[in-house]
Amino acid sequence: MEFLVRFETHLPDSMNDAERGRLKVAERARAMELREDGILKRLWRVPGRRAVIGLWEAPDATALHDALATLPQWPWMDVTVEPLATHPQEA
Amino acid sequence: MEFLVRFETHLPDSMNDAERGRLKVAERARAMELREDGILKRLWRVPGRRAVIGLWEAPDATALHDALATLPQWPWMDVTVEPLATHPQEA
Amino acid sequence: MEFLVRFETHLPDSMNDAERGRLKVAERARAMELREDGILKRLWRVPGRRAVIGLWEAPDATALHDALATLPQWPWMDVTVEPLATHPQEA
Amino acid sequence: MEFLVRFETHLPDSMNDAERGRLKVAERARAMELREDGILKRLWRVPGRRAVIGLWEAPDATALHDALATLPQWPWMDVTVEPLATHPQEA
Amino acid sequence: MEFLVRFETHLPDSMNDAERGRLKVAERARAMELREDGILKRLWRVPGRRAVIGLWEAPDATALHDALATLPQWPWMDVTVEPLATHPQEA
Amino acid sequence: MEFLVRFETHLPDSMNDAERGRLKVAERARAMELREDGILKRLWRVPGRRAVIGLWEAPDATALHDALATLPQWPWMDVTVEPLATHPQEA
Amino acid sequence: MEFLVRFETHLPDSMNDAERGRLKVAERARAMELREDGILKRLWRVPGRRAVIGLWEAPDATALHDALATLPQWPWMDVTVEPLATHPQEA
Amino acid sequence: MEFLVRFETHLPDSMNDAERGRLKVAERARAMELREDGILKRLWRVPGRRAVIGLWEAPDATALHDALATLPQWPWMDVTVEPLATHPQEA
Amino acid sequence: MEFLVRFETHLPDSMNDAERGRLKVAERARAMELREDGILKRLWRVPGRRAVIGLWEAPDATALHDALATLPQWPWMDVTVEPLATHPQEA
Amino acid sequence: MEFLVRFETHLPDSMNDAERGRLKVAERARAMELREDGILKRLWRVPGRRAVIGLWEAPDATALHDALATLPQWPWMDVTVEPLATHPQEA
Repeated sequence: MEFLVRFETHLPDSMNDAERGRLKVAERARAMELREDGILKRLWRVPGRRAVIGLWEAPDATALHDALATLPQWPWMDVTVEPLATHPQEA
Repeated sequence: MEFLVRFETHLPDSMNDAERGRLKVAERARAMELREDGILKRLWRVPGRRAVIGLWEAPDATALHDALATLPQWPWMDVTVEPLATHPQEA
Repeated sequence: MEFLVRFETHLPDSMNDAERGRLKVAERARAMELREDGILKRLWRVPGRRAVIGLWEAPDATALHDALATLPQWPWMDVTVEPLATHPQEA
Repeated sequence: MEFLVRFETHLPDSMNDAERGRLKVAERARAMELREDGILKRLWRVPGRRAVIGLWEAPDATALHDALATLPQWPWMDVTVEPLATHPQEA
Repeated sequence: MEFLVRFETHLPDSMNDAERGRLKVAERARAMELREDGILKRLWRVPGRRAVIGLWEAPDATALHDALATLPQWPWMDVTVEPLATHPQEA
Repeated sequence: MEFLVRFETHLPDSMNDAERGRLKVAERARAMELREDGILKRLWRVPGRRAVIGLWEAPDATALHDALATLPQWPWMDVTVEPLATHPQEA
Repeated sequence: MEFLVRFETHLPDSMNDAERGRLKVAERARAMELREDGILKRLWRVPGRRAVIGLWEAPDATALHDALATLPQWPWMDVTVEPLATHPQEA
Repeated sequence: MEFLVRFETHLPDSMNDAERGRLKVAERARAMELREDGILKRLWRVPGRRAVIGLWEAPDATALHDALATLPQWPWMDVTVEPLATHPQEA
Repeated sequence: MEFLVRFETHLPDSMNDAERGRLKVAERARAMELREDGILKRLWRVPGRRAVIGLWEAPDATALHDALATLPQWPWMDVTVEPLATHPQEA
Repeated sequence: MEFLVRFETHLPDSMNDAERGRLKVAERARAMELREDGILKRLWRVPGRRAVIGLWEAPDATALHDALATLPQWPWMDVTVEPLATHPQEA
């Protein structure tokens, strides 16, 4: 089942640049793994914002939550999830 | 996978009482079938409104949509669906 | 450039079933052409609603508008368009 | 009487991991007691968020408030409560 | 248990003055009965609007719903219900 | 004239327990005086929240504001005021 | 006591031009009387809309409601009322 | 002074195609005159919608309102006006 | 041209009482000057809040912005500006 | 393609005046370059706020995002982007 997932990341002001750099690298690495697992299918940037829209696929909302919670930046993300049904023209 | 589904039904003013009665009976009959199939698990009324909150279970959002669309009153329902993940205390 | 486009269609109560049927067929045919032209890339259904989320690609918002306005049901659609930027992980 | 209760927990950045761990354990223990008392009936996770939807049963809103306020994380929870009426199909 | 109930009534344009007058009389009579039963405790007008705020008391949301649904104008009311807990200063 | 007043209190994290305790006692004492003066007529708790709904009576909005601003916790309250008109059934 | 009152008027499509003209004249005449009575103090137009912001003065919300309800277009107005307190710089 | 003006036009279903055609021609002609007068400076389409964003210049909000109200489709437009101040980089 | 201006002031917790006192005095002095200049015409308090509604008059939005920005508390104000057109009954 | 871009800048309280001054100068310099490149076409101030509305032109949302992200104050900006289509009267 596919999900449309939006998240916006707000790292705390107190986090220094080295930590931010490490987090970004770790985030990218984890995202790559999720792509290889077929869970993360596409990402787009919301122009002008530190926000991302993604197309994800997971057996259910529990598996999706577990995947999202493995993202290193997850503790600082505001996430909304929208379930998607197959459109008859796609079937 | 479970879903929290809200709907509010607004039958058109032009529908007469006989039609409304038939629809209500058909709606209840179809809901009973969906309960027997294990798709519809619980219904609550939103007090004061012609609105209903339901707990549904379906393999995915497509199957849920197909089940909802079999409800006789569906053409006049405003529906919102919220995906639910299993809480670790429930597992 | 890609766009995320949501629309919800409300045909008027006064439209009869034959007209609705003709419109649906024409809508599907036009959507197929837009897919072949590479403008319409994916469609999903919003579960429970007569609403659709689509991924579209067009040179700019003007070309997107012109494509959307060729849909036979466009006069009865409520449409919102969200511009998408390429995510660095996709580049 | 049943209530649909949503809460989202935001522990302050200044709270250290040990405190967070203790709170989580205490929270789970208190939730278990409330389940045994029949006040807390079901919990679901909102996918992607540190948010929870719960089905609670209490004689009235005062008893519900008192139960919620015994949760160790309550001082950091944003809670909304929705009253539920029995649906005629459930009676 | 007490509830704060708001409703706004929109009678259809097609309803003639005689019907409106009959409805208003019936509405007032039913409200009086609900007051005598101790279910309806206070009503206020929202200034400038055809809207009313009321303080109601009922054993639970189901009993409240049943009382509201006996109001003759209920089919044309938009109703929202807010549960109230006892404040410790009132106890 | 009556007013429906909602407030939600957020004491700063930096305030210690002793200060909080003193504030709570002072708040209650001031509320009691406002009740004796007939300005504060009823208080309810919004279940699950640190929020209160109150029924107040004051000659006008200026007198109401002055009364609210004497509450010791007022600097940390988010307050909204709704004017109430007498309902004809109450007159 | 002063109130800030917004209203937006939507006459039904079925009302003919003669009726609209008569209503407008009656509306203006009644507004003039309310000005003479000191209840209506100022009116502004919201640019681009059939909406009006007014400064009204009345002993309380009940008197304000009664004044508003004498406006001939009141049955077709959507009205919101905001209570105003005297600013200390004005006293 | 410049204003950002959004409007969305909803012609009634009962209006026939000939009337719609005449209105559209008259709308365009009036818009051209407003451009020549320097009141209407730019128009953009909101992609996917029958909505327009415009940059207007008028001595004040009253003159802007009077200009907008001369548009033949104004009775069916929902208009919002946002005042613009000169940015120091433009001065 | 007149404008309806709302602002709500949130001084930072770290500001001490002496600074707050000095700011308040300076604010009042500047407001008095703006009144004498005919830019600030009326102020009201929103009851229960640290918020103010004002009626301002300025040649255009740029002059209004410049006047607002001279208020000593402006760096801590959240301001919204609504343009007002002359109502025909006032002309 | 043109975009309507709104942003509101909130520099952290901890930033001192020298840093703020340097940022402002750098912001203006970068904006001038973007104007010379034809990406930034117009800026307006939202009266009363530290907010700006701008008309931008870029090949697509990705190029727009990249331009916005070069603004020195971008880390402290809340940005929203609205795509604009050409209006037929402009073509």
